[in-house]
Amino acid sequence: MTDPIDFYFEFSSPYGYFASERIAALADKHDRAVSWKPFLLGAAFKREGTQSLVSYPLKGPYSKRDIERTAGYLGLPFVWPPGFPILTVHAARATLWTQENAPDRAVDLIHALYRRLFADGVDIGHAGDVVAVAEDVGLDPIAVESGMKSDDIKARLRTETDAALDRGVFGSPFFIVDEERFWGADRMDMLDAWLTRGGW
Amino acid sequence: MTDPIDFYFEFSSPYGYFASERIAALADKHDRAVSWKPFLLGAAFKREGTQSLVSYPLKGPYSKRDIERTAGYLGLPFVWPPGFPILTVHAARATLWTQENAPDRAVDLIHALYRRLFADGVDIGHAGDVVAVAEDVGLDPIAVESGMKSDDIKARLRTETDAALDRGVFGSPFFIVDEERFWGADRMDMLDAWLTRGGW
Repeated sequence: MTDPIDFYFEFSSPYGYFASERIAALADKHDRAVSWKPFLLGAAFKREGTQSLVSYPLKGPYSKRDIERTAGYLGLPFVWPPGFPILTVHAARATLWTQENAPDRAVDLIHALYRRLFADGVDIGHAGDVVAVAEDVGLDPIAVESGMKSDDIKARLRTETDAALDRGVFGSPFFIVDEERFWGADRMDMLDAWLTRGGW
Repeated sequence: MTDPIDFYFEFSSPYGYFASERIAALADKHDRAVSWKPFLLGAAFKREGTQSLVSYPLKGPYSKRDIERTAGYLGLPFVWPPGFPILTVHAARATLWTQENAPDRAVDLIHALYRRLFADGVDIGHAGDVVAVAEDVGLDPIAVESGMKSDDIKARLRTETDAALDRGVFGSPFFIVDEERFWGADRMDMLDAWLTRGGW
């Protein structure tokens, strides 16, 4: 069995959402698994000296338009949530807890969180929002809520985020396969070609 | 006749080079002309509060790799010039002068400058380097040299760069067609689809 595609994503990233809808089919095509890796992009911004796309004077308005256009190009539903960018620490922690304690529900939870945020345009920034989505995908809301608030999971998210940055991850989505790095939903065609041809 | 595709490029941008090799075929396909628009990306970095890709701690090494890989993906020759990023004010001024005084040679000059820099890996930062390339494409080296050093052309490059920024251009390559903006060599497929479908 070949190594999985490590798929790093920040829940606040619309391009991460687009990638989340397409990565499984791409991986299947190449007989690879997907390792779903939530992390906090803010930590990468801090290390890089960058900031959220939408906060730049020219790149900001462009990116908003590009995100809407990309949704159309890819045929995916998209609605801006209020207050973008949103707080995603709870969503990321709930995902990590679910990956450990109910792994067969974890990918469903990721899709449900991303779709609530960017297909329905509903904020998932509060812990209660995340727990409600978790319950929708069949998880025990009390177990999720207590798990995502545990010191263990809080520490885990910091560790996972640091590990991502140490592997060179600086944006969302980000893919690493066989130590080759691909940044952006717009690199998925190249990732596909790379897996087909084994490089250039 | 429909409006041309405004193609903004900075000579120091490898992605601008990649786009310069592909934009004419894309425009032809849609019965559009290309309006070739050199500008100075440094002015955009200044306005945005950003910097050259390669100067970021994580994005820098990634981008170097991505540029080499993109060349392979697109089947274009690529060699890093020494001292990247290079000074491009002379290349941009020579292009503006040629567009006005020998317009039928201007696109050849752009290709020759970009290829000298990124296919051969030879610096074009000094005025003498640019004049030599101009001579190679059949321009009068004395006329080019005096033209590119004229106050008129120096002022023109500032005006063109300011006009680009005022239209929202913040990176290279950048395309504007029918007031729709596309940033990056990796948006050319979307630009193609946009021109085919007329939007989403």
